[in-house]
Amino acid sequence: MNHNLLKGKNGLILGIIDYDSIAYHVALQCIKEGANIIISNNKQAIKYGFITKISKDLSIPIIEADLTNYTNVEKLINNTLKLFNSKIDFILHSVGISYNIRKKNDYIKHNLDYYFNTLNVSSLSLHRILSVCFQKDAISCWGSVVTLTYYGSKKVLPEYNDMGDAKSLLESIVRNFGYYYGVNKRVRINAISQSPVITKSSIKINNFNTIVKNSNSKSPLGNANSDMCAKYCVTLFSDYTRMVTMQTLFHDGGFSSMII
Amino acid sequence: MNHNLLKGKNGLILGIIDYDSIAYHVALQCIKEGANIIISNNKQAIKYGFITKISKDLSIPIIEADLTNYTNVEKLINNTLKLFNSKIDFILHSVGISYNIRKKNDYIKHNLDYYFNTLNVSSLSLHRILSVCFQKDAISCWGSVVTLTYYGSKKVLPEYNDMGDAKSLLESIVRNFGYYYGVNKRVRINAISQSPVITKSSIKINNFNTIVKNSNSKSPLGNANSDMCAKYCVTLFSDYTRMVTMQTLFHDGGFSSMII
Amino acid sequence: MNHNLLKGKNGLILGIIDYDSIAYHVALQCIKEGANIIISNNKQAIKYGFITKISKDLSIPIIEADLTNYTNVEKLINNTLKLFNSKIDFILHSVGISYNIRKKNDYIKHNLDYYFNTLNVSSLSLHRILSVCFQKDAISCWGSVVTLTYYGSKKVLPEYNDMGDAKSLLESIVRNFGYYYGVNKRVRINAISQSPVITKSSIKINNFNTIVKNSNSKSPLGNANSDMCAKYCVTLFSDYTRMVTMQTLFHDGGFSSMII
Amino acid sequence: MNHNLLKGKNGLILGIIDYDSIAYHVALQCIKEGANIIISNNKQAIKYGFITKISKDLSIPIIEADLTNYTNVEKLINNTLKLFNSKIDFILHSVGISYNIRKKNDYIKHNLDYYFNTLNVSSLSLHRILSVCFQKDAISCWGSVVTLTYYGSKKVLPEYNDMGDAKSLLESIVRNFGYYYGVNKRVRINAISQSPVITKSSIKINNFNTIVKNSNSKSPLGNANSDMCAKYCVTLFSDYTRMVTMQTLFHDGGFSSMII
Repeated sequence: MNHNLLKGKNGLILGIIDYDSIAYHVALQCIKEGANIIISNNKQAIKYGFITKISKDLSIPIIEADLTNYTNVEKLINNTLKLFNSKIDFILHSVGISYNIRKKNDYIKHNLDYYFNTLNVSSLSLHRILSVCFQKDAISCWGSVVTLTYYGSKKVLPEYNDMGDAKSLLESIVRNFGYYYGVNKRVRINAISQSPVITKSSIKINNFNTIVKNSNSKSPLGNANSDMCAKYCVTLFSDYTRMVTMQTLFHDGGFSSMII
Repeated sequence: MNHNLLKGKNGLILGIIDYDSIAYHVALQCIKEGANIIISNNKQAIKYGFITKISKDLSIPIIEADLTNYTNVEKLINNTLKLFNSKIDFILHSVGISYNIRKKNDYIKHNLDYYFNTLNVSSLSLHRILSVCFQKDAISCWGSVVTLTYYGSKKVLPEYNDMGDAKSLLESIVRNFGYYYGVNKRVRINAISQSPVITKSSIKINNFNTIVKNSNSKSPLGNANSDMCAKYCVTLFSDYTRMVTMQTLFHDGGFSSMII
Repeated sequence: MNHNLLKGKNGLILGIIDYDSIAYHVALQCIKEGANIIISNNKQAIKYGFITKISKDLSIPIIEADLTNYTNVEKLINNTLKLFNSKIDFILHSVGISYNIRKKNDYIKHNLDYYFNTLNVSSLSLHRILSVCFQKDAISCWGSVVTLTYYGSKKVLPEYNDMGDAKSLLESIVRNFGYYYGVNKRVRINAISQSPVITKSSIKINNFNTIVKNSNSKSPLGNANSDMCAKYCVTLFSDYTRMVTMQTLFHDGGFSSMII
Repeated sequence: MNHNLLKGKNGLILGIIDYDSIAYHVALQCIKEGANIIISNNKQAIKYGFITKISKDLSIPIIEADLTNYTNVEKLINNTLKLFNSKIDFILHSVGISYNIRKKNDYIKHNLDYYFNTLNVSSLSLHRILSVCFQKDAISCWGSVVTLTYYGSKKVLPEYNDMGDAKSLLESIVRNFGYYYGVNKRVRINAISQSPVITKSSIKINNFNTIVKNSNSKSPLGNANSDMCAKYCVTLFSDYTRMVTMQTLFHDGGFSSMII
């Protein structure tokens, strides 16, 4: 599908790790729709190898950046602006990690250093990017920022561990920054609350295959996949949705509207 | 703006009264995007005159139908299917009336006959349409239904009178029918919770001009207008949003995310 | 348990049918806490027999009233005021019926006469009572009204049929009347969203035993029973909760905060 | 008011600074209701002087503890258990601070060290306490934990700065810990979303007097004060509300249910 919805727009996509990443599918669809894309991830993710391949496949630049480091984020935005030679029209933030999940630490007694890291990487990274962009006036008027979240921000899925807390915080940052960015820059900020998708990162969650199956069978339309998520992101980056802001938007085949 | 997002799709648009109607703007944008449109309203609304003009302007058929009458709705859907010679791909339901508002009846002691009429016209009409469509299998696989609602469904705006109750009921019908239509027909149903817009109908609300001004000044992006609403509807009718269902989607420039 | 929380308060309890009714347990607990209670139901429910026994057991008066009839509600409130020789301090509204559930009518093609009856009995009855009470100034300053609802107002449980819609409407009436009663009379109005409980009425719901079991196993504290609901009602009728109003309060052992 | 609702119960109250603290009013009411109370705060707050006076006035022990330090929290719980010679029946967590508010740092470019401190003191302190209590099995079966929050967790009040984010995170911790504590220990955890109250801490918020006035005039029952909050806390600590858990409970005179 391609309707030139993002023709000439410049987008920064954060969080691609490999071909299974939702962010990869978003990048693909954005390019189909006519956007110029820059991707970014940290050193470790780039070393893993797939990002460089994807960059070559799609002929798009990579910028290395550690989103937990303010100076790094400043460089990222500076370099993005230089490469585009123009302001940024849209940003996808698809970033999250929990060492408490990776180390199978129980929520009740999880390591608080890891917990702060979860918040820092998964939630505060968005604050940092938006703060830098705001101060550099890096996002175009009527630009659009989307982050990915999950229903665990609003209800408890025990296996989701400290990521539920991180996503609650993330959605609050979306609202608060959405206010400032709306009033001052006519930029909108939203979170998509996405069906569970098997990725390099999510598969670390306990029983994740079962969670995905349950979710699929209980969603009236089934789980939304990465490709559908990418298409939904495109509508939110496009000029058709300028007045939607500060929202958590469920993209989950109806799952979150069901009891049991 | 036109990206052929609805090329070849067949849409039924309910609730145009004149050029100020949100539904009129939706029809316009859908036609721009390549859709075939049929419009419908009841005898009284058609007598008012503008609908016939609009039908001629846009070269689209009108079908007269009273949405409070099941047999009428059956005829409407039958005729729509005949005229399209195909299933319906999308429906806009932009219908609501409150005689309690028109007669300035206080919510506390309002007339219960009028109250039932408010619910019947504003909420049950959607149930009736979806029920008929379901039984006739009138909506295409991956079709989309959108109804318009307002934040008064979730919080109290005293001037909104019994329409707040009607919109709560409407959003519940969206969820319940969304489940059945999702599971059985892969059709999605959503409500857009729209900024206040001055129309022939809304202007009957007490102090409506003040409500619109307040809403505008408190929305980080200002009020969303009819044209922006039309564009947002187009995304929801398009194939980019197939997995969004059973939702109340705020299209209000951020108003509903603000305190005070 | 008894702490004289309602000592000297006058309460009207609507919706007792037999010893399994939640309203019966509320009446019991209110009496323990020192309240004077009057109960009411319609002719058919009284004929069923248990209400008269309960009235004798507890030495409390019954007033027959049909809550779908405005004149009947006026008589009910007049007689209640006479019997108490004082204003009403609290009301429990535990009323609901769906013939679509009883007749096993599918939500999609259910009978709309029954549907209006569902709304009339289950939702509008509260509007009628509050309207009459407001006009007669029948509720004390800092009085409290509680109605019972279920999570089906916010999410879909297919078996709950048109009762989900009725409960959405009911909760909207709670908010709207809560505003007027708050501003004008310092009376608060809330809905308790209660765990499923097997009663003469609820057992008509398809697969209700399974629904109760699932709910119990997925609630972190298990299902809340009628006795616990009665105690919670007492806190809301007491002077400890004067500033809680217009809320849907979950009393469900945590069920509604869980995913899956 | 006193109904012996907490007779013989042992409660730990965190967050008293002076006579204006909500936590002070909660302590007072709990003592009236028959509870044994221990209060705690950090060295700095105790130096400020009023806590020692309050401790003498009420003849209740103070334990000094820094809630950002795990070992300190362990000592606090150990000492509390020793002093009570019994498990803890209820805890009030009324703790929060934002140096970004104090230093008038803008949300957009606020200091991230301060931001982490805000989260650490205002949100993570609850996690730390519950984690220690869980591992020491320090809370009685059917015990109750209450934390104080504000509507800024769900909607934007610009002046509330990073405290909105902290409260979102806090409410998520309430849900997640509520699950584990419910399933394993039959302990419930809830947040009260309280009207704004002028305290030593809140008065640092920009324009706070205006915020309080606006809130009061827009709440159908007016703002809830500290004394009413204390009474509401008592119901949640009592045995009348055992099945309410994982909730954000609005105690705000209806403010959060109003538009504008």
